[in-house]
Amino acid sequence: MKAYKDYTTEELKELETVLKIRYKEFQSRGLQLNMARGKPCSEQLDLSMGMMDVLSGDDDLLCEDGTDCRNYGVLDGIKEAKILIGDMMEVAPDNVIIYGNSSLNVMYDTISRSMTHGVMGSTPWCKLDKVRFLCPVPGYDRHFAITQYFGIEMINIPMSPEGPDMDLVEKLVSEDDSIKGIWCVPKYSNPQGYSYSDLTVRRFARLKPAAKDFRIYWDNAYSIHHLYDNDQDHLLEILAECKRAGNPDLVYKFASTSKISFPGSGIAAIATSHNNLEDIRKQLTIQTIGHDKVNQLRHVRYFGDIHGMVEHMRKHADILRPKFELVEQILEDELAGLEIGTWTKPRGGYFISFDALDGCAKAIVARCKNAGVMMTGAGATYPYGNDPHDSNIRIAPSYPPLADLETACRLFVLCVKLESVKKLLAEREA
Amino acid sequence: MKAYKDYTTEELKELETVLKIRYKEFQSRGLQLNMARGKPCSEQLDLSMGMMDVLSGDDDLLCEDGTDCRNYGVLDGIKEAKILIGDMMEVAPDNVIIYGNSSLNVMYDTISRSMTHGVMGSTPWCKLDKVRFLCPVPGYDRHFAITQYFGIEMINIPMSPEGPDMDLVEKLVSEDDSIKGIWCVPKYSNPQGYSYSDLTVRRFARLKPAAKDFRIYWDNAYSIHHLYDNDQDHLLEILAECKRAGNPDLVYKFASTSKISFPGSGIAAIATSHNNLEDIRKQLTIQTIGHDKVNQLRHVRYFGDIHGMVEHMRKHADILRPKFELVEQILEDELAGLEIGTWTKPRGGYFISFDALDGCAKAIVARCKNAGVMMTGAGATYPYGNDPHDSNIRIAPSYPPLADLETACRLFVLCVKLESVKKLLAEREA
Repeated sequence: MKAYKDYTTEELKELETVLKIRYKEFQSRGLQLNMARGKPCSEQLDLSMGMMDVLSGDDDLLCEDGTDCRNYGVLDGIKEAKILIGDMMEVAPDNVIIYGNSSLNVMYDTISRSMTHGVMGSTPWCKLDKVRFLCPVPGYDRHFAITQYFGIEMINIPMSPEGPDMDLVEKLVSEDDSIKGIWCVPKYSNPQGYSYSDLTVRRFARLKPAAKDFRIYWDNAYSIHHLYDNDQDHLLEILAECKRAGNPDLVYKFASTSKISFPGSGIAAIATSHNNLEDIRKQLTIQTIGHDKVNQLRHVRYFGDIHGMVEHMRKHADILRPKFELVEQILEDELAGLEIGTWTKPRGGYFISFDALDGCAKAIVARCKNAGVMMTGAGATYPYGNDPHDSNIRIAPSYPPLADLETACRLFVLCVKLESVKKLLAEREA
Repeated sequence: MKAYKDYTTEELKELETVLKIRYKEFQSRGLQLNMARGKPCSEQLDLSMGMMDVLSGDDDLLCEDGTDCRNYGVLDGIKEAKILIGDMMEVAPDNVIIYGNSSLNVMYDTISRSMTHGVMGSTPWCKLDKVRFLCPVPGYDRHFAITQYFGIEMINIPMSPEGPDMDLVEKLVSEDDSIKGIWCVPKYSNPQGYSYSDLTVRRFARLKPAAKDFRIYWDNAYSIHHLYDNDQDHLLEILAECKRAGNPDLVYKFASTSKISFPGSGIAAIATSHNNLEDIRKQLTIQTIGHDKVNQLRHVRYFGDIHGMVEHMRKHADILRPKFELVEQILEDELAGLEIGTWTKPRGGYFISFDALDGCAKAIVARCKNAGVMMTGAGATYPYGNDPHDSNIRIAPSYPPLADLETACRLFVLCVKLESVKKLLAEREA
């Protein structure tokens, strides 16, 4: 394929005419498709329906240690759940606190607690003039929304396939004690699907932050969310690395079963050092009478152990893989060689990241919307919704059925072509 | 019965000797009983076991409007749950947000949000020099723990069988703009079992707070938790009263099904004005992807409607009533006329409040503990754990089986007698 930039102006204009006709055809179809969020599809949810039957009215709802899951008590999670989720998070059960259904809620509460009570005795952040967070970009919009909500200033850190730019991270963190954290999705990152290299993880564990209350916010949301059986990313376990590096308290690790069991009713958890856990428990004992132990028991009885969970994830992969491959195939077929966009080819997670020509992302997403296909808002992958290049678009292939996904992708590449042509023509006119 | 104060010193000394022997007998029995918390007993939990079977793997988990409860979405609760909990809270469904399993968590989050973001645009409380809360006493220790945790100064407000001292509440609230809230358990109050009179509720609704961000924290934890079918307390609905009084935004109302379905895995809710809900949703959308909708659906399918829930509460009452009556009978049999204590006779809720002679509560609870019976810590019913008279003790009859409850109560009255005798003797020696 010839790159668009090598087209003559005449050729570009002809192409624009053809693309506009095709776009109008799409518009006339009254599509209503959604590729905006990393939402599992119905077939994936059906995989976990057995969970509705593992606890029956005829059973007891007792833990192995005799705890009645129906009653009050057990602030930080039943032992069985700590073992299961500990295995999932690759940490010891006693490094884990089990929460309710949303790891986002755990992260929010972690920031909120730091605002009002500081971290392990530090000055509450609300008493400080300035609090800053590092944000590898592109990244997860809901992370950025939390820090923005609390008035925390966000600093962009460029991502590479190895992870965040660690030279920059090390420099900023060691120089500036107003920097209190960094948001990380270290495996199958949102939206690029990158997994941090061993060197990156080791450099994280060896950070020397100016702020004692600096923590790495390690949202390992896709730890076992592989697309392939034999072609998986591996991530160094950060708690162990931090301990080894003499920085045991440096990291909060977050996870949930939202994309393993049910998005609305999984269980979430934090894993961190005993010092951090003690700090967290001081708050937790004030905040709640404990999280839903019946649902913890339900997860334990359903999955049995980590092997059951891994087996279960294979079924998710079987549903998701064709969707990712379809998107990649269409991008490849339609865009390869045109030099109007690049995209990632993740081996897991929920997203494909697409980079359009600078200044085209907003227009592409708007154009998709005007033909009935919702994409993640352009800019959403950057703090303050501000993508300085206006180029990144997050593609979420999980939710639509394959046929709809194909339609949505065909429209998407059409919009990419059309906006790219318009940009090139505008440049030549200028 | 002759009052202890009318005993001669000689008689008191003889009595002390007898009581000490009886106490030693109790100690020798190696008891391990717990009347510390308002914890439902196993028989009560068994009442809700049918809830484990209302959702099956063969069903769909769809709301009437087609929402799939298994997936992401629906920030503030499924419609069916809002109707059910709205009926329970005596408010319209659209005044309700459904949360996770703990109303305490909702209250904590409400205070925490006010600390970091204020209330409907007011200055965040963490930016103020002083924030105060009014605390009707005796009251609920976990309320006081939340305000203490956030460094909020607590001011005691005496309770009467009509509710808090409203003359004092009105005066303080109208004069002092650092007073931002008052903790209320308005029906079958914790620990006294008092229900606020109509006049008290009307005066609450007509408060004229100096602080615009003052709110009434109305924890209606025991709204349908009656002990008797035909002898129930009735509480005016405060949202409607506030609206009528031209103060629609004055109150946050909290409730949960913790003592209706399961303490560990019920559903909690806030009910308040649309202005307040809008303020709350701004935070909620940052904090979480939404609460457990499957558990909401489970509750709706199990109870059907408010009538099913009320019927269910009759079964709880049938289990709890004999326990309350046993405690009251023992107190009456053993203490009436001795003038060494008074106690409440609630028609609902989870507690009986006992007032010993001044300066005796700590000693009585310690003595119970030394013979193997855990009571709620003396002082716990007051802010900072400081009962200025050291006289109030909360009795929680729900958890122990009847036989154990009788033993625990017999020990309790013995300890009350013994410490009262010691006090009277000490006074005479002084």
